[in-house]
Amino acid sequence: MSRHLVADIGGTQIRAALFDSETTTPLLIKKTTTIGDNSALDRLCDLMGEIWKNDRTIESIGVAAAGPTDPYQGIVIAAPNIPGWVNVPLREYISQRFDVPVYVGNDANLAALGEWKFGAGKGHHHLIYMTISTGIGGGVISDDRLILGQFGIAAEMGHVTVIPDGPICPCGQLGHLEALSSGTAIAQYVQDGLNNGVKSQLINREPVTAKIIAEAARSGDRLARDAFDRAGKYLGLMIANYLHLFNPSIIILGGGVVQSGELLLRPTRDSIEANVLSPKYLENLTISKSALGDEAGLLGALVLASANLP
Amino acid sequence: MSRHLVADIGGTQIRAALFDSETTTPLLIKKTTTIGDNSALDRLCDLMGEIWKNDRTIESIGVAAAGPTDPYQGIVIAAPNIPGWVNVPLREYISQRFDVPVYVGNDANLAALGEWKFGAGKGHHHLIYMTISTGIGGGVISDDRLILGQFGIAAEMGHVTVIPDGPICPCGQLGHLEALSSGTAIAQYVQDGLNNGVKSQLINREPVTAKIIAEAARSGDRLARDAFDRAGKYLGLMIANYLHLFNPSIIILGGGVVQSGELLLRPTRDSIEANVLSPKYLENLTISKSALGDEAGLLGALVLASANLP
Repeated sequence: MSRHLVADIGGTQIRAALFDSETTTPLLIKKTTTIGDNSALDRLCDLMGEIWKNDRTIESIGVAAAGPTDPYQGIVIAAPNIPGWVNVPLREYISQRFDVPVYVGNDANLAALGEWKFGAGKGHHHLIYMTISTGIGGGVISDDRLILGQFGIAAEMGHVTVIPDGPICPCGQLGHLEALSSGTAIAQYVQDGLNNGVKSQLINREPVTAKIIAEAARSGDRLARDAFDRAGKYLGLMIANYLHLFNPSIIILGGGVVQSGELLLRPTRDSIEANVLSPKYLENLTISKSALGDEAGLLGALVLASANLP
Repeated sequence: MSRHLVADIGGTQIRAALFDSETTTPLLIKKTTTIGDNSALDRLCDLMGEIWKNDRTIESIGVAAAGPTDPYQGIVIAAPNIPGWVNVPLREYISQRFDVPVYVGNDANLAALGEWKFGAGKGHHHLIYMTISTGIGGGVISDDRLILGQFGIAAEMGHVTVIPDGPICPCGQLGHLEALSSGTAIAQYVQDGLNNGVKSQLINREPVTAKIIAEAARSGDRLARDAFDRAGKYLGLMIANYLHLFNPSIIILGGGVVQSGELLLRPTRDSIEANVLSPKYLENLTISKSALGDEAGLLGALVLASANLP
């Protein structure tokens, strides 16, 4: 048993927590907003400092960052939701303030690691984690190790082409999975339908969010159901491709949009089955919702901090 | 230094060779056809037996098999070009005849391993190998290890959707990369053009192969150039996606169609650059032709046999 300070830097919220290794209940947890009077880096370090001052037995620090992150260098390459965060030397900055080893990783990769160690992926050696939220991210574990690539920016599961010349993705490319199956894409599909005069109970609802669309779909709204069917169709198509590329024994789906349950999961499963190369890829395959929810990233940072992974 | 017997089972040819580990020149090599009077399994074992009888210092055997292969169980799940080869217990069969450890793997995965150890990928830790031939296959090495998945059937790089509802793939699915960028797909595109009355010097050539199309393209034939441009466009699109998923430092392209050189590689590179998520994925990235050519699979089997990898 060892004690670790971990943090999760999101676009709106920073959380820091104290954990004993091998346990999933924090001894202490603190939150603050990402944007405030001082810089996000100082807000992060101040929050961690509040935990640090109460416990001098902390052996290491693990931090999950939203956006492409180089875990070898400890640098956040770009955090799309934090103004000015380009090539931020996160590990170096934190190390100057706290005199223990510091490990840094991408939040979706670390969520995969958290689910593998503590969550739905326990006991699996080949795992895909995808988060379907405002955007789509993910992490892949092959033979008990994260697939990171030369700069640690592998597993960008939302930024793969599903329809060449399809709808524009926030990244600027066309037809990516994120532009077809994210919460934002589901809302955009409904908005486009409403703008084109498709009848729907969502006509005067503002803003149209994936959550509101899910409610409408459950009450039988055609446009709302179509939006989830389409998102699931393309999500399942791409998951089938991921089966061919990674041959995992579990696919774990996290993120807010997955809370819509069968509305998304039924068309997703149908599409996986329709698009898979051979039934062999479905053998011994579990498709599961995230067990750790919003805590996956934080717990992944704990795995990182306690296992001294890159 | 240790001595190993390796073999490569293709759809038309079986090769067996004797190697010292860490060397790439065979001490002895023998070939036969895959289909003949007796079964392919017996033809393989007889060929290996011819080498075996001359050298009793052989420490292990490595075999590369075309088609999905479970390296953990040593079973060829399906060899599309060998009649009746479904769930063939290759390792067990060979082990009954030769009393040394036997290792089995998919030929494209082993080609990746061969290039990593002896070829274009030497010194790289994150590598993608793709073979563009009649079909499209591949192998991925992440952090110096093959990505295999739970049954060893990961890295089916040709069987990923590029165009939903696109042209039919030999596997039965629609719009796979193999149906758009393989030699077969290039020939099909030209044949379709000719059938639709597109003017081309290829009009009375039979059969229209990728090699003949390459000659016509070099002499300025529009249809032939279009065929390579289209194949390269989709190959590059999918390679860009693979950069996002695996973040390698090298892409190695092998297989007969790559012999067409810039005809395929120029549109491929253009498409990679057009479709990449961020320039970071192109940093420190080499795109290279295979250094080992047809020997990649055999040399990968040597790596497998000498390193005792799964």
